[in-house]
Amino acid sequence: MKPSLPVRLTAEFLGTAFLVAAVIGSGIMGERLSGGNVAIALLANTIATGAALVALILTFGPISGAHLNPAVTVSDAIEHGLPWREALAYIAAQCAGGFVGAVAAHLMFGLRWYSFSAHPRRGPSQVLSEFVATFGLLCVIWGCSRRTPSAVPYAVASYITAAYWFTASTSFANPAVTIARALSDTFAGIRPQDAPLFIAAQFAGAFAATALFRWLVPRVRVDAGALS
Amino acid sequence: MKPSLPVRLTAEFLGTAFLVAAVIGSGIMGERLSGGNVAIALLANTIATGAALVALILTFGPISGAHLNPAVTVSDAIEHGLPWREALAYIAAQCAGGFVGAVAAHLMFGLRWYSFSAHPRRGPSQVLSEFVATFGLLCVIWGCSRRTPSAVPYAVASYITAAYWFTASTSFANPAVTIARALSDTFAGIRPQDAPLFIAAQFAGAFAATALFRWLVPRVRVDAGALS
Amino acid sequence: MKPSLPVRLTAEFLGTAFLVAAVIGSGIMGERLSGGNVAIALLANTIATGAALVALILTFGPISGAHLNPAVTVSDAIEHGLPWREALAYIAAQCAGGFVGAVAAHLMFGLRWYSFSAHPRRGPSQVLSEFVATFGLLCVIWGCSRRTPSAVPYAVASYITAAYWFTASTSFANPAVTIARALSDTFAGIRPQDAPLFIAAQFAGAFAATALFRWLVPRVRVDAGALS
Amino acid sequence: MKPSLPVRLTAEFLGTAFLVAAVIGSGIMGERLSGGNVAIALLANTIATGAALVALILTFGPISGAHLNPAVTVSDAIEHGLPWREALAYIAAQCAGGFVGAVAAHLMFGLRWYSFSAHPRRGPSQVLSEFVATFGLLCVIWGCSRRTPSAVPYAVASYITAAYWFTASTSFANPAVTIARALSDTFAGIRPQDAPLFIAAQFAGAFAATALFRWLVPRVRVDAGALS
Repeated sequence: MKPSLPVRLTAEFLGTAFLVAAVIGSGIMGERLSGGNVAIALLANTIATGAALVALILTFGPISGAHLNPAVTVSDAIEHGLPWREALAYIAAQCAGGFVGAVAAHLMFGLRWYSFSAHPRRGPSQVLSEFVATFGLLCVIWGCSRRTPSAVPYAVASYITAAYWFTASTSFANPAVTIARALSDTFAGIRPQDAPLFIAAQFAGAFAATALFRWLVPRVRVDAGALS
Repeated sequence: MKPSLPVRLTAEFLGTAFLVAAVIGSGIMGERLSGGNVAIALLANTIATGAALVALILTFGPISGAHLNPAVTVSDAIEHGLPWREALAYIAAQCAGGFVGAVAAHLMFGLRWYSFSAHPRRGPSQVLSEFVATFGLLCVIWGCSRRTPSAVPYAVASYITAAYWFTASTSFANPAVTIARALSDTFAGIRPQDAPLFIAAQFAGAFAATALFRWLVPRVRVDAGALS
Repeated sequence: MKPSLPVRLTAEFLGTAFLVAAVIGSGIMGERLSGGNVAIALLANTIATGAALVALILTFGPISGAHLNPAVTVSDAIEHGLPWREALAYIAAQCAGGFVGAVAAHLMFGLRWYSFSAHPRRGPSQVLSEFVATFGLLCVIWGCSRRTPSAVPYAVASYITAAYWFTASTSFANPAVTIARALSDTFAGIRPQDAPLFIAAQFAGAFAATALFRWLVPRVRVDAGALS
Repeated sequence: MKPSLPVRLTAEFLGTAFLVAAVIGSGIMGERLSGGNVAIALLANTIATGAALVALILTFGPISGAHLNPAVTVSDAIEHGLPWREALAYIAAQCAGGFVGAVAAHLMFGLRWYSFSAHPRRGPSQVLSEFVATFGLLCVIWGCSRRTPSAVPYAVASYITAAYWFTASTSFANPAVTIARALSDTFAGIRPQDAPLFIAAQFAGAFAATALFRWLVPRVRVDAGALS
């Protein structure tokens, strides 16, 4: 019944590739067309990312759970939703997918296949933003997946749509996406030297939410294969 | 089956905190990026608030009912959906959550942890707007929760998305959020001295809708724990 | 089981009042805030109208069918979904609701309670637009309500969201709303002398779609009480 | 149970006509109103197209499967979802519908009934974009329709909403729509001489995704009649 590991890894790879392509590609398009109005560029970036998440989680959720995010995969492994060996393979697939997605976005827009970002994102406000963003994301995932799993695609996409605007960092909330964005000197980029603190804050937020929801909603396996 | 009171209060606290963070945070971001075009700032504020409501009601609805709003909690208590003792605890949790959400938004954007708003919102048009906004909100809640409870997250979020634009006050429609916004000298703020009339109009609108729907849709317990 | 006629008429009255308040109110707000960029004003108007339709059809659909539109009510009566006597009462409630919604919008924004619109909307392109808009609306209603009634709120709201932009008239597609907009000298208004041709085109489009769907999807009662 | 072929062809014709009218019409409206800000015009175009897809797939999906796209129809025939004879009839209906939709859009906006587009869209980035766009579209369709068919309307609409922004070509992803857009010298147009490579890339992307999903999600008939 449950798809084989190679099938699930392919789903994580493809899903994360499309997610990163959506984040970076729509950032490039938004910046090119918006004539310098950053709010309009971010609005386009937001709508594209939220819509992509709905489509990708509906598509890949029934196959691999559509984690598309190492912070989600590690949290799921902590909760015994996934063996640690498979979790590591998931994370590798997500990071590889994110890299391929960034390259695909660059090639579609006629840019060099990769370039290190020069976009600084640092300081306590940014790091706090990533903690809050990922804490909230895992709250949404644990709360929804344990009680109304069929709504997870809409809940996650809606949450990220909101968090793009209510956090100062525009809510990366995903270590694999953060790494891919460090390789893109475009609207959605982040300087490589700023990435480690982002990633640390993301894992910290994810773990805090996971611990809290053990108490708030008694543990049940989150299984993306059951999402629909 | 029904979660314990502390669990439900934590859900109301967290949910209202994220709701206020979304309202205030996206207002700050929108204003910063929109280069003076208030319509674009409000559009971003609207999309973030509506999307946050979808995610938060899906996440916390099955736990506490996801009232996140004293006007909803009091209306529910009037309809015997919640004992009055629990209703008071809900309201305290909502107000505390709203305050923490405002502080979190300020810190994420590098502002002082709180500041009284200087944004005047007064006059009969504004007060009428809040009456209409909250009357409509409770119509949506009673109409949906008694007949199609699984659609409540989408109905409430859609209603508020619309009401941001069709009321002159941008539809606060929530006493706990109003108090929190009085403590934020940002795009979404309201002068503390204007808050009491807003709150009075909100409760009046909520009670009018509650009375009307007793007749329109025969009474059944609205139970957020049953929303999904 | 089926609500009494007075209850259903109240639902049609309230629903149409909120729909018109959303259309006119968000038009005023959009125009005031958008600094002369009509596309941004119409975008706000579109999002508010589409979101209001989701909320209102979810709320009032289970009570009265949430027609909120004389062209829908007459089409339903033609298909024997509603006795003609009740259809006339529905239409009266819709027109009265539309008038009250327009007045409410004006008062919320501090305008005179009504004012005849000076906004010309005429010529064959505009009339063709209304024919196409209402033809499409009834296609969506008949297609969805006969096969997937629970999706009607989302289908209708999505259709109108699109039609605001793909028709030259911004898709009024509703005689009761057209009359109410003639009484509003604001962004969403229409000159009273241009309204009759709009209304004629709307009924013509509705009847054409109704005739076509008799053949496309064999007749079943469309019953808004069954929408959820 | 399954509608007759003429009924299904009428659904494909009407659905594609409305889809093209939405794409071209909203492009005209967006360009006219946006005062030269291309990002705002494309945002309106995106929202109208995505919303139209939700409404059209919900309406016509239960009748004909709502392919509205020769790349989808050919892929479905390859997977034995549709006899080849019917597939050819579907494609003819889609192309005819697309043409009528373009004419309707032009007439609604007071333009000549057709005009060859002068909008160049060429080069490897554009062609790669169409390959990626249609590859992703078919991933979404195969992934969703085989596991959660009732979500297909939302998944497809969300995907196209995102792809308008994350591909450099704004994701035509549909041969029938591409032909129709070649006949429209407006915002959404494409020079006739650039259309063949777009169409070739679209079919290539569709076939690649179809082959991949044979392995990812074991074959089941995709039957649009079962979508709801």
